[in-house]
Amino acid sequence: MAEKITPRAKDYPQWYLDVVQEAGLADNSDVRGCMVIKPTGYALWEKMQRGLDKLFKDTGHVNAYFPLFIPMSYLAKEEEMAEGFAKECAVVTHYRLKADKGVPLHVDPEAKLEEPLIIRPTSETIIWNTYKKWIQSHADLPLLINQWANVVRWEMRTRLFLRTAEFLWQEGHTAHATGKEAEEETHKMVRVYQQFAEEFMAMPVLVGPKSDGQKFPGAIYTLCIEALMQDGKALQAGTSHFLGQNFAKAFDVKFTTADNKKEYAWATSWGVSTRLIGGLIMTHSDDNGLVVPPRLAPLHVVICPLGRTEAERGPSIAAAEKLAAELRAIPRDDFYGYEPISVKIDTMFDKQPGYRYAEYELRGVPVRVEIGPKDIEKAACAVARRDVPGKDGKKFGIPLADAAGYIDTLLRDIQKSLFEKAKKHRESTTRTANSYDEFKQMIEQPGFIYAHWDGTRETEDKIQEETKATIRCIPFDGPTEPGTCMVTGKPSAKRVVFARAY
Amino acid sequence: MAEKITPRAKDYPQWYLDVVQEAGLADNSDVRGCMVIKPTGYALWEKMQRGLDKLFKDTGHVNAYFPLFIPMSYLAKEEEMAEGFAKECAVVTHYRLKADKGVPLHVDPEAKLEEPLIIRPTSETIIWNTYKKWIQSHADLPLLINQWANVVRWEMRTRLFLRTAEFLWQEGHTAHATGKEAEEETHKMVRVYQQFAEEFMAMPVLVGPKSDGQKFPGAIYTLCIEALMQDGKALQAGTSHFLGQNFAKAFDVKFTTADNKKEYAWATSWGVSTRLIGGLIMTHSDDNGLVVPPRLAPLHVVICPLGRTEAERGPSIAAAEKLAAELRAIPRDDFYGYEPISVKIDTMFDKQPGYRYAEYELRGVPVRVEIGPKDIEKAACAVARRDVPGKDGKKFGIPLADAAGYIDTLLRDIQKSLFEKAKKHRESTTRTANSYDEFKQMIEQPGFIYAHWDGTRETEDKIQEETKATIRCIPFDGPTEPGTCMVTGKPSAKRVVFARAY
Ligand SMILES: [Zn+2]
Ligand SMILES: [Zn+2]
Repeated sequence: MAEKITPRAKDYPQWYLDVVQEAGLADNSDVRGCMVIKPTGYALWEKMQRGLDKLFKDTGHVNAYFPLFIPMSYLAKEEEMAEGFAKECAVVTHYRLKADKGVPLHVDPEAKLEEPLIIRPTSETIIWNTYKKWIQSHADLPLLINQWANVVRWEMRTRLFLRTAEFLWQEGHTAHATGKEAEEETHKMVRVYQQFAEEFMAMPVLVGPKSDGQKFPGAIYTLCIEALMQDGKALQAGTSHFLGQNFAKAFDVKFTTADNKKEYAWATSWGVSTRLIGGLIMTHSDDNGLVVPPRLAPLHVVICPLGRTEAERGPSIAAAEKLAAELRAIPRDDFYGYEPISVKIDTMFDKQPGYRYAEYELRGVPVRVEIGPKDIEKAACAVARRDVPGKDGKKFGIPLADAAGYIDTLLRDIQKSLFEKAKKHRESTTRTANSYDEFKQMIEQPGFIYAHWDGTRETEDKIQEETKATIRCIPFDGPTEPGTCMVTGKPSAKRVVFARAY
Repeated sequence: MAEKITPRAKDYPQWYLDVVQEAGLADNSDVRGCMVIKPTGYALWEKMQRGLDKLFKDTGHVNAYFPLFIPMSYLAKEEEMAEGFAKECAVVTHYRLKADKGVPLHVDPEAKLEEPLIIRPTSETIIWNTYKKWIQSHADLPLLINQWANVVRWEMRTRLFLRTAEFLWQEGHTAHATGKEAEEETHKMVRVYQQFAEEFMAMPVLVGPKSDGQKFPGAIYTLCIEALMQDGKALQAGTSHFLGQNFAKAFDVKFTTADNKKEYAWATSWGVSTRLIGGLIMTHSDDNGLVVPPRLAPLHVVICPLGRTEAERGPSIAAAEKLAAELRAIPRDDFYGYEPISVKIDTMFDKQPGYRYAEYELRGVPVRVEIGPKDIEKAACAVARRDVPGKDGKKFGIPLADAAGYIDTLLRDIQKSLFEKAKKHRESTTRTANSYDEFKQMIEQPGFIYAHWDGTRETEDKIQEETKATIRCIPFDGPTEPGTCMVTGKPSAKRVVFARAY
């Protein structure tokens, strides 16, 4: 089929890079660790932004924008955060270059900043420094703010979308009058992420807290959504942190309560990033290339008119144009983000049909329509669904008069099928280990493992060292029976989920 | 009225800051020169992004994302660009902080970058370095790419939205097979900016090339849109640059032509920024606060139910809710960017009605509806338009049954009226100077001045030194009769436009 793509079974990491490359999603740049997000990759991100942004606004959040630069001293104010991010900060130390006559362009030593600025790795510090001005009274709360931004975490080993020095993300930062409200927000937002992952990305996720060893620097606890990739490794896809009063204390953000006392505000933060694109690829794509769920597809339908001669092509093109217009005229609704169905008519007549089809399979277009002279005779067309490769996914003889409605229904069906398929994959590779020996054997096979753990950092670290598996989360919706830790035999309240992870 | 706002006549710069502050648009941050864009300001920017993005896509452009960091050597490759931006570059020199025991957080001297990275002040260099990989053949052209991003130009004197060290913008970067095509693109995009300014922002603009003294570093020529603020100063609101083959040569971007020759690609770039928000404010707002054209308004309609007692308020609230639902149900169309009309019901019953109205005037909500007990008796409401302050803008006795349609029509009318009013203001302050003496007198009064100029940098600089006026543009649609330069008496092909500017 698509010789451009290394099969998954042969070399999974290379398959991933091939899909990213051949579907035109991203490139490594010449700047260490920074990627270029190419048009198709960025169009996916735009679709994700639209979907998430609507869910954020529907839950009462507004967007704002805070500075890229964070004074080094701000980071120092929250100890855990300083420790967590100090080693991966890009630091601005000067504000001017100089090109003297005869001397090449260089940093002007006289333009040194009094205080170094770091490029935000996350914005809790600069935002809570701002909230100090915005929060005076309980009437100013809650403050429900999100930011879409680029952030930088200097990484030595990078991988397109999954781990890059600069990435795009959203970060929500909310302030509340009570710890209870902030905790409710923390839970609400991780459920919003779950909804987005499952309904838009068609990617089933586990939801629950991280173990203390895996939580965010500065958080009381971290909730996350955790997905399973096709190779059986886990991917942390989104996190929501309950920050308690840590940042309010670090930045002295107090408010007057209804009964006129002064109290520190309560905080949450939550984020997802362009990493989701990596997760999307590894959840659905196949050896023919990218597979995209319709709700996130930049292009929903490609129509390939066929014909060997101009005379044959004319009627095919006319039928393609008519169908395209009908598809675009389907009333906008929530499923398509209130945008029209996106349709392209392919006209690469100088290529063989098989080549043309493979091109759009590579790029993950959910539905392909073929209209050739024989179809025209029957006033019909053939419709192929990207999620079911080969003949099984192609239906002939769809009447042109009904095709638009058929395709609209098919797109919605593809969305559901992709989710079901991914869920089935997860379920079929999820196992339960009852002893550490059993666990060690199981972990060599792909998938999630439920096992008992004594709740300590020590045991968690030992398991990670010996098996490379980490605790992905303590799932809200998992089994609840207590037991004893597979390593130490100490009591365990319930099983947690282990896996090797990206 | 709104005592929070200094009247324009008293102190225009303070009025501007008051509007920005009181309407909740932006704050200075503690990071030198960087602003915080507050929720209402960011909502305006989102509306602008939506409108512009659609115009870009309708003209065949796609979005992508390139690295924030530019190696210093890239900037050095294009001499004019290096000269133009060297003095305002934020420079990253290190990639790690360190917190030794007992020593405060500091830059790790061992983590010095081999080559300094600058934060993009504009992305021509990094993008053309990437295009080198993407452009091989004429079949790869044109490349029509836009980026939404933050950029940094270190500024010593800053002003919210108008001039800040970090700002948000879009930058289009296109590559073409011929100079002719690239020039057509340059012109097309400045016209897209004109369309956006006039149809969305209701801000009339002059369109034409900059003089050589005002063009972009690295450009062959720069086209711009130029608006007139209420105080009679000009604001450059968007620029479109024809870059010739300068960047292709600097980054060695050659393609194979149809007849198998190697040629350098031709380039354009074009951008608008959050500066537009400053222009929007200074075009329409008044002494009561912000005025926003409906196509960009985050909130279109506020409904204020009135009543002194619970019994009085109940029917007012019910009527408000019914009207809000009717407004939200109006079919989505292009005027509203295919989003529903945005409606809020105000319930600050503990405040006087006058206070409540003033709050929404401050924030620029285009339409306010008042529903009190007397209105309910008549099944009617009062509707006030923000662009016509006071009694003249308020109509009583609009039947509730017709109110949704009335408001929809009114919103469209406000959009037109704002444009007409701004255009009238520009026309009434635009004058023609026939001698340098006359010019020097005129320039002390607000507005554009058409005058003859000999086309030299020398004369342009002399005029600027002596009068603080600059050539805003050589308008495409202005008077065309030739004459002689008001300063030197040398021949002039046609009049150009002067003003003092932001
Ligand atoms: Zn997890
Ligand atoms: Zn101009």
